[in-house]
Amino acid sequence: MKIVFYTAGGTIDKIYFDAKSDYQVGDPILDEILAEGNVTFAHESKTIMKKDSLDLTDHDRELIYRTIDEETNRLIILTHGTDTMVATARHLQSIRGKVVVLTGSMAPARFKSSDAPFNIACAVGAVQTLGEGVYICMNGRIFTPEEAVKNVDRGVFEKLPQR
Amino acid sequence: MKIVFYTAGGTIDKIYFDAKSDYQVGDPILDEILAEGNVTFAHESKTIMKKDSLDLTDHDRELIYRTIDEETNRLIILTHGTDTMVATARHLQSIRGKVVVLTGSMAPARFKSSDAPFNIACAVGAVQTLGEGVYICMNGRIFTPEEAVKNVDRGVFEKLPQR
Amino acid sequence: MKIVFYTAGGTIDKIYFDAKSDYQVGDPILDEILAEGNVTFAHESKTIMKKDSLDLTDHDRELIYRTIDEETNRLIILTHGTDTMVATARHLQSIRGKVVVLTGSMAPARFKSSDAPFNIACAVGAVQTLGEGVYICMNGRIFTPEEAVKNVDRGVFEKLPQR
Amino acid sequence: MKIVFYTAGGTIDKIYFDAKSDYQVGDPILDEILAEGNVTFAHESKTIMKKDSLDLTDHDRELIYRTIDEETNRLIILTHGTDTMVATARHLQSIRGKVVVLTGSMAPARFKSSDAPFNIACAVGAVQTLGEGVYICMNGRIFTPEEAVKNVDRGVFEKLPQR
Repeated sequence: MKIVFYTAGGTIDKIYFDAKSDYQVGDPILDEILAEGNVTFAHESKTIMKKDSLDLTDHDRELIYRTIDEETNRLIILTHGTDTMVATARHLQSIRGKVVVLTGSMAPARFKSSDAPFNIACAVGAVQTLGEGVYICMNGRIFTPEEAVKNVDRGVFEKLPQR
Repeated sequence: MKIVFYTAGGTIDKIYFDAKSDYQVGDPILDEILAEGNVTFAHESKTIMKKDSLDLTDHDRELIYRTIDEETNRLIILTHGTDTMVATARHLQSIRGKVVVLTGSMAPARFKSSDAPFNIACAVGAVQTLGEGVYICMNGRIFTPEEAVKNVDRGVFEKLPQR
Repeated sequence: MKIVFYTAGGTIDKIYFDAKSDYQVGDPILDEILAEGNVTFAHESKTIMKKDSLDLTDHDRELIYRTIDEETNRLIILTHGTDTMVATARHLQSIRGKVVVLTGSMAPARFKSSDAPFNIACAVGAVQTLGEGVYICMNGRIFTPEEAVKNVDRGVFEKLPQR
Repeated sequence: MKIVFYTAGGTIDKIYFDAKSDYQVGDPILDEILAEGNVTFAHESKTIMKKDSLDLTDHDRELIYRTIDEETNRLIILTHGTDTMVATARHLQSIRGKVVVLTGSMAPARFKSSDAPFNIACAVGAVQTLGEGVYICMNGRIFTPEEAVKNVDRGVFEKLPQR
């Protein structure tokens, strides 16, 4: 089993930049999370872009689509900002032959307390057991793109009320 | 979706007992892990026993079997010591109508660095997407009881070499 | 013994603001640090301002001066941005009858890895054992305002080379 | 400034040993604490013994005495179990020409939540500002050996009621 992790940015990757200070945060927070989980599956991580999901354009979504569509590995986890995660998930739905799980976090992964490690690990459990398709993994739950919605007030993902 | 967490003990729950000192660790480490993951699914946690898995007897395994067999909730995560996790998983295999995922950790969940949060979260992702059956979730991978073995030297779970 | 903590802002208090997301970080990171240290001394915390130390004006420094000068408690820890911590410390030097220890951090206190808890605790140890005066506590060392300088390249406080 | 850290054991160093499992914890937790504090002072750490402080004998205390008495560095922090920390501190009081600060923790330093980092950092702040003598640094406070007592019920160090 191999999982390829793509990132499109979002809060999970947020770091704090201080213009004057020389403080800088390195990248490998995903590596730290996987190392703490003592994982033994093959994995690779690639950056598509580093954007607030509110700033993602149609062009950006098209780039995400093509990148994942052309990826040869079957199991893919895409970290993404939460605000437009559902929109991107819907955009990716026509991708065939892959299991794509989108996840992210409400608090930056570098924070002492963050939902990022849980979400990444939950997505790892889901991506290898789900069938072909596109899914959202947030708040310990797996959603299809059609049924998911971010409840901005509560800061959680929910199922759309059924009509 | 509701997940019922059972514990049979093991390293994941290990706490440090000091005969004389009044230092005591409370129970709700699972609650902390789920709270950090900001989970929104219904869940409940129950203790079957608190034992080193090397000390589990046939009688203990029978108690675990009956407890889970009689549980009415479909999705079950059982935390268990790693040393005999495979034996217990095999013992539970005849349980029908449920998804049972066994997990645990090499380092106690209370340690600053532990594989426990990752394993719990990975099991949460897996239990809701797997079909009926008994599984082991360790090292970011999902194993069936027949194929799993703990490599004691490396401290990880592996697939048995196929004959 | 009672310690009054004042904050003038700086990286130690930095939080991540996301315009659209409802993610918000509460204040009591100092309380968390002190609770983890299981401290039993009386303490109180007050905010003078919340500014990057590069943005502090003469007027701000005057406000800090007056606030601390008028404080009736003898032991004071002032958290402050590192970039102009030395300037503020020098500005406060004419305050009499108090022990004032300035500290801060290179990484926000909310980060998983941060020098903030160490610096706060080190300042707590120092403020109750130092004599009247103004001091800087950074990198596990205690400096007088005259001898301290921030080495921006190395991201640490050092003693000025003696002439 | 140089600080020499000695350890005599105690909860701060406690690790969890699992007879059968190959799980083992390395030593350098003090190094991690100092690294997180981004300290720049010279330091060295040495082990005198690794014992529960309740098991320390007169012979052990004599060994601790001699080791510290013969140490050439002036600033010394001794980590020690809390249960008999006061007894050892009193035993060391005749040592001359040094500043010796005893500290420890109620929860092992490897725990996710532990008073160890705070106590170490507080001792670092105190040892370089105190005059010659032997002190206890616990709960964010500095005690002389004569006035200190561990309140076992509350799990904190206090001043003995004055007669």
